[in-house]
Amino acid sequence: MTDWLAVDWGTSHLRVWVMSRTGTVKARRASDAGMGSLSRDGFEPALLDLAGDLLGTGKTPVIVCGMAGSRQGWAEAKYVATPCAPPGIDRATHVPTNDPRLAVHILPGVKQTSPADVMRGEETQIAGFLSLNQKFDGVICLPGTHTKWAHISAGEIVSFRTFMTGELFAVLSQQSVLRHTVAGDGWDAEAFTDAVSTGMSNPAELAARLFSIRAEGLLNDLHADQARARLSGLLIGAELTAARPYWLGQHVALIGDDKLCKAYADALGAQGLPVERTDADRMTLEGLKAAYSALKETTQ
Amino acid sequence: MTDWLAVDWGTSHLRVWVMSRTGTVKARRASDAGMGSLSRDGFEPALLDLAGDLLGTGKTPVIVCGMAGSRQGWAEAKYVATPCAPPGIDRATHVPTNDPRLAVHILPGVKQTSPADVMRGEETQIAGFLSLNQKFDGVICLPGTHTKWAHISAGEIVSFRTFMTGELFAVLSQQSVLRHTVAGDGWDAEAFTDAVSTGMSNPAELAARLFSIRAEGLLNDLHADQARARLSGLLIGAELTAARPYWLGQHVALIGDDKLCKAYADALGAQGLPVERTDADRMTLEGLKAAYSALKETTQ
Repeated sequence: MTDWLAVDWGTSHLRVWVMSRTGTVKARRASDAGMGSLSRDGFEPALLDLAGDLLGTGKTPVIVCGMAGSRQGWAEAKYVATPCAPPGIDRATHVPTNDPRLAVHILPGVKQTSPADVMRGEETQIAGFLSLNQKFDGVICLPGTHTKWAHISAGEIVSFRTFMTGELFAVLSQQSVLRHTVAGDGWDAEAFTDAVSTGMSNPAELAARLFSIRAEGLLNDLHADQARARLSGLLIGAELTAARPYWLGQHVALIGDDKLCKAYADALGAQGLPVERTDADRMTLEGLKAAYSALKETTQ
Repeated sequence: MTDWLAVDWGTSHLRVWVMSRTGTVKARRASDAGMGSLSRDGFEPALLDLAGDLLGTGKTPVIVCGMAGSRQGWAEAKYVATPCAPPGIDRATHVPTNDPRLAVHILPGVKQTSPADVMRGEETQIAGFLSLNQKFDGVICLPGTHTKWAHISAGEIVSFRTFMTGELFAVLSQQSVLRHTVAGDGWDAEAFTDAVSTGMSNPAELAARLFSIRAEGLLNDLHADQARARLSGLLIGAELTAARPYWLGQHVALIGDDKLCKAYADALGAQGLPVERTDADRMTLEGLKAAYSALKETTQ
């Protein structure tokens, strides 16, 4: 029997964990029915398509995090402002459904007024991390398309900052003149750490260093693996300089895609900073479980 | 009668000036048969399609600058290394043609070993500018997809540096999450100069400031015109910081698209630096005319 569904609903993906009341994962399902491809009334059918066969006859709680709660999503779950604990079930938006078996709760994102910033989804990973590390005081870095650095103290997100580093890498490597030079999926660890170090010093030169990748491809037959690692290193290096107030002398935990977290760990390690790696999927699930636990308490 | 053809052959465009021996423009033609859309044996037909009806029965010199001379172009015109005068007709590649009426000369680009850099097309605009300003000593800035800063002394390109600023603006405004926030063609002059000033200070923060544009769109309904001008200003501001050794205390001339040159002139003006604006098309044509004059001399 399905006791509840844990749902991570991003822009390009829908992931469902089929859960027991005690927190055991009975099954996992996923589809590409992300928020970006759905209109408002497409969410409930997409969820039923993926997991409707798992529902019992009674009401099944569905705890959702991610872009499904954005203004263009299933129902808006308004941002909670920093400083704040990662918002839990008491701040969730309850979404009416046509199917009476669903009891949908969407967790809100977090916003910051100055500098203006937003997160949606990462706050649930932070909640998961904090539920496993209740005394944590330090910095959580969540590498991704929009990498977040969050300063955590006393269970609260005190402040955070988002860098478009991952998206810059994506558009430059796929859409710009550099796509010829960085083709493929290769990597060169030494070229990466060298580029991080270059990128950290005089980061204003970024746009010129980017073009140098192209020029070295033309003039010196720069290898695509080196070019790709250099592109990543230059971008992450500039980010590390700007994020120094976050990480310097801090205890840093990384939550995100494995390969990308390895790159951040290498880059920070070269600065003499040991970091803690985590399992990103597990952090999401633990965050959703924490929300479910609170729901159980309020409905008992 | 057509005495010679002046040709600017870029990645996305082909432009032809129909010239008299004395340098008068008799006609202009253009098409979108740029290098990017042509295979090697497509260049001659593309030129004949556009201007074949203008040829006489004798041989017509055709002086070409731009990407037609790249390795993927009509015929490679190898880069000349800095420091060097903008390469003239004596460094051009002569291209054999099927049509006996054509005598095609492609002008080379310029390369720099360290930092690795290349230009192709801009050197001819610089040649044109120098033919009109023979005593010029200072800096030429050529804003564009790949903005160039060139230090000119005694008729030579001493050094130069390319910034991918224009391409960053293009991919971010068209392909990234910012496309929603910067939609349209609007502009806000004050938002631009503010952003240049922000972008110049602590440029490592660029990737975070870019995401703030998105966040302010979501949280504060930032107007698209302001967002677009801010995106441009942040990118140009970072470039100006890195290019400071080029422009500080210098005589700067701008060659490029009118709107973009106005933005650079505004940004540099706010730094107390007056700049000289020029007509980019005229610079290209004057550069090609200088090459033709030298050809006339050698064949007389």
